[in-house]
Amino acid sequence: MTGEFDLIDRIRQRVGSDSSVLLGIGDDAAALLPTPGQALVATTDTLVEGRHFLPDWAPADIGHLALAANLSDLAAMAARPRWLLLSLTLPAADPDWLDAFLDGFLPLAERFGALLVGGNMSSGPLSITVQALGEADPAGLLRRGQARPGDCLAVTGVPGEAAAGLALGHAAPLALIERWKRPEPRVDIARQLAPWLSSAADVSDGLLADLAHLLRPGQGATVQLSDLPASPALMSALPEHRARWQAQLTGGSDYELVMSLAPDRIEQARACCQAAGLAWSVIGQVNDSGQLRCLDEQGQAFEFDRSGWDHFLSPPVTARESTP
Amino acid sequence: MTGEFDLIDRIRQRVGSDSSVLLGIGDDAAALLPTPGQALVATTDTLVEGRHFLPDWAPADIGHLALAANLSDLAAMAARPRWLLLSLTLPAADPDWLDAFLDGFLPLAERFGALLVGGNMSSGPLSITVQALGEADPAGLLRRGQARPGDCLAVTGVPGEAAAGLALGHAAPLALIERWKRPEPRVDIARQLAPWLSSAADVSDGLLADLAHLLRPGQGATVQLSDLPASPALMSALPEHRARWQAQLTGGSDYELVMSLAPDRIEQARACCQAAGLAWSVIGQVNDSGQLRCLDEQGQAFEFDRSGWDHFLSPPVTARESTP
Repeated sequence: MTGEFDLIDRIRQRVGSDSSVLLGIGDDAAALLPTPGQALVATTDTLVEGRHFLPDWAPADIGHLALAANLSDLAAMAARPRWLLLSLTLPAADPDWLDAFLDGFLPLAERFGALLVGGNMSSGPLSITVQALGEADPAGLLRRGQARPGDCLAVTGVPGEAAAGLALGHAAPLALIERWKRPEPRVDIARQLAPWLSSAADVSDGLLADLAHLLRPGQGATVQLSDLPASPALMSALPEHRARWQAQLTGGSDYELVMSLAPDRIEQARACCQAAGLAWSVIGQVNDSGQLRCLDEQGQAFEFDRSGWDHFLSPPVTARESTP
Repeated sequence: MTGEFDLIDRIRQRVGSDSSVLLGIGDDAAALLPTPGQALVATTDTLVEGRHFLPDWAPADIGHLALAANLSDLAAMAARPRWLLLSLTLPAADPDWLDAFLDGFLPLAERFGALLVGGNMSSGPLSITVQALGEADPAGLLRRGQARPGDCLAVTGVPGEAAAGLALGHAAPLALIERWKRPEPRVDIARQLAPWLSSAADVSDGLLADLAHLLRPGQGATVQLSDLPASPALMSALPEHRARWQAQLTGGSDYELVMSLAPDRIEQARACCQAAGLAWSVIGQVNDSGQLRCLDEQGQAFEFDRSGWDHFLSPPVTARESTP
């Protein structure tokens, strides 16, 4: 019969190490050697079945998403991923499920140089909590709430693709489903962009909600809806522009970066993203109005549902799934 | 209507900070300043309703236990607690529940100098994941698997009290229920004992299972059952000595420390615990037999159920609760 310790052994056999890991999986805690002079950047995210993913998801997709959500938080701080803890709560000790989960989790970790050094295993309703530890130059931390009036607002990639995939469910084009299930944390580009930015956050709760996190008290912003980037997949999934805007402004789970920067830094930032082959779009500007306004091509304010993603106030993934 | 962000604000208003916290609750991740030259010690534990605690538990007890389990892991490494992340998965955004939970969590954190610096909030079946970060002198880390033949084995406190409380449920004396719900992480005494010890672990899975973690491959140990410490509460709850031994050897959740040490270090270790007013008992010895043997007063081997605590193989707390 497979138990907790067999599963932990299975994980241990697949993880790497380096000289920063004094003690990895197998002791009461991991012991790590931080880089002198670096800030330690720490974040955690939990994925719950039925809220963040559906029961029919492949375990590898769950493994990828659980880690990507955490790496995205490190990216939003311009931190370099270093170490991971993984707390798995599983309905049963299923080694095949675990292997498949790790098939999604470990390659993403390796790609960003993060080592799995410990964790926890419990039985219960399926949920996954990852803790990601990264390092960053204390003076180079990319923070929320640091925008300056007159700064431009910009975003990587095409926000709304994940939300469109999520809203349409099985009816969505594969490209959009992949954007929801296999988001790409913007770790490398965030560190390249950081010197040019005044503030940044990752888009996990919805573009407008996360954009608002960049602002200081009393600040506001205008977003030019016609400047929101779109892709053929998104256009075909949501051809009606108001529905598309709604998904782009309030849909969560894109894990793109939203950022503020002085207008004279736009060319440097654009060049970074061009070199990386990543879309990057200026979508608005910070002001002192205290209000977030979204304007269409005629300069008319677009009235949208402002709720963004709230884990208690938003409907669960399954409810959205059933109403495409 | 209360949402995720209201709950996070509620937490933020109650937590302290110090100069090691560059960025606490409210950004994409926390940014911390580790102490130069110290190893970073990282651990995580998840508590699931019905497995680790019962639906009728007071939220403050859940908050205490969730943190105590993590601080106990840091204790077992002789680490000093520094920073905490808290990932809460709650069925509903109930501010009263959260306040009561924090009433158990925050005072324990403060007592051990640990700062809550970030976390995550999701909706779903109740579970709590804490990540605890501590620091320790890299040369002073208290590790598993470092026992030497001839070392004595010792334990703090009275192992089995939590298991007896858990097994008897509402029928248990209050003192035993408190030992299960409100375990005391042995943080300070572990750091005082560390210089005298060859190896240590905390007793979370059961005394024998965790004692086995101290041994190197090929090593074994004998445990003298008559040397297991008992308390009036434990004696009255489990008067029959075989039932008591079973609870003491295999019951989890004591969060005491089990340790190995050279015989000529016994007096120093005992003096540490005496000064702290904490029971400390030598219960056995390490050998090269490759076997764990438990001997009664007549030198007869005691046959017990060796399973210890496995989150998948052991019955859930609720099942134990219903069969006192």
